[in-house]
Amino acid sequence: MRPLILVTNDDGIDARGVHCLIDRLLPFGDIVCVCPDAPRSGQSMAITVNDPLKLTELPDYNGAKMYKVSGTPVDCVKLSMHHILPRKADLVVSGINHGSNSAINVLYSGTMGAAMEGCAFGIPSIGFSLTDHSADADFTPCYAVIDKLVKAVLEHGLPQDVCLNVNVPDKKGIPTEMRLCKPCIGRWNDEYQEYVDPHGHKFYWLTGTFENLEPDNEETDEWCLDHGIISVVPINIERSAPITPGLEWLPSIMGKV
Amino acid sequence: MRPLILVTNDDGIDARGVHCLIDRLLPFGDIVCVCPDAPRSGQSMAITVNDPLKLTELPDYNGAKMYKVSGTPVDCVKLSMHHILPRKADLVVSGINHGSNSAINVLYSGTMGAAMEGCAFGIPSIGFSLTDHSADADFTPCYAVIDKLVKAVLEHGLPQDVCLNVNVPDKKGIPTEMRLCKPCIGRWNDEYQEYVDPHGHKFYWLTGTFENLEPDNEETDEWCLDHGIISVVPINIERSAPITPGLEWLPSIMGKV
Repeated sequence: MRPLILVTNDDGIDARGVHCLIDRLLPFGDIVCVCPDAPRSGQSMAITVNDPLKLTELPDYNGAKMYKVSGTPVDCVKLSMHHILPRKADLVVSGINHGSNSAINVLYSGTMGAAMEGCAFGIPSIGFSLTDHSADADFTPCYAVIDKLVKAVLEHGLPQDVCLNVNVPDKKGIPTEMRLCKPCIGRWNDEYQEYVDPHGHKFYWLTGTFENLEPDNEETDEWCLDHGIISVVPINIERSAPITPGLEWLPSIMGKV
Repeated sequence: MRPLILVTNDDGIDARGVHCLIDRLLPFGDIVCVCPDAPRSGQSMAITVNDPLKLTELPDYNGAKMYKVSGTPVDCVKLSMHHILPRKADLVVSGINHGSNSAINVLYSGTMGAAMEGCAFGIPSIGFSLTDHSADADFTPCYAVIDKLVKAVLEHGLPQDVCLNVNVPDKKGIPTEMRLCKPCIGRWNDEYQEYVDPHGHKFYWLTGTFENLEPDNEETDEWCLDHGIISVVPINIERSAPITPGLEWLPSIMGKV
């Protein structure tokens, strides 16, 4: 039986990135694509708790079954598992995102939220992102790494609780190298633009610039992307922290409250 | 100078839990409370990218400055850091959530999303949740652990990238013990209820029951909560996974794509 591949994204069902991804995945298995009905960037692992979800079947795209959901990327994965897929998927692939999900951005990313949800269902899951935000981005730089990683993950699987965050640089031509990286340490500065509404009340819009706090660290995803190299970061969804230096005091206060 | 404490939640500015939390924190420092203007459960670390945010100052509550934001819990923390707080906070406390955020639920939780965002800003951060979903829940079982942990975290701090997920059982009376735990391994079953709209189209609403896959493991948060014990789980926001068994193949395919 051919592998069953669930494809999703956070840019919505009309995004160019997801269609490029489907085209590239067709040789590897049967594709079911379930995406948000509109762009849902920055949704992290958000779920829709207090509203119903509409599910709409669309015409096939190059042999792939297509659906849209009035919810978040994680809603799409959950609804797929419970009501859309004919059997448990062999692979979840999210993307190709229009824009980078490197460094701390993995925390906010809907693309990676969907991959992490696939992982939570015990299915090998990968998120692909291209560092070009534009709607008509050229996704050619992603093709070779998709081929190589999808083939390898279908063959080897991934450990329980681990999925892959893959970022592809759009500058410096077609990348010829990929590296295993750490997420770079960095932060967002000046995150809000301030406005005044017609009634004199202030309102705010998220913006800002990312500051790389270790720009010379060649082991980080940001360094690789800046140098035309694809970054591959394994992400653990089991997030409990060990007792490391600075936390030794915590066990000592456990017990009676 | 008294510590500056940012208080937030995901149940919204009108929730009883956040008012109980403020009352309990008043002896520890100056409080600024910034919450979503409506319930935002299940928002994880979602951010509002494509819409503006309204910020409204409200009357003080027992000496605490009060604000509401038309966004997610993470939006509240970000906007606080950039436009509301007079200086960098010494502590971020999120909650008290109406309902458990144990086990895998930490991934979807807006309460913990806010705590993780505080942590991303390099500020010691704690999320508190009570395992009672009701709007008029009695938060008395949380008081002793809030006192003990807030005092200790203000004194010792927390390591970079680590925040605390604290869940308090509402059954079996006032808990007298807290334990350092692992998140229990489990999954959600039957996650959607199916309906048919007046036009004959199906729609879906999230529901389901949590299945604990290691019910006898006394080291887990779920076991503790089931036995009337408060669970404390350190959460790491730096999520890159090491190369463990099952992932050894990955480094070997790096290099040329």
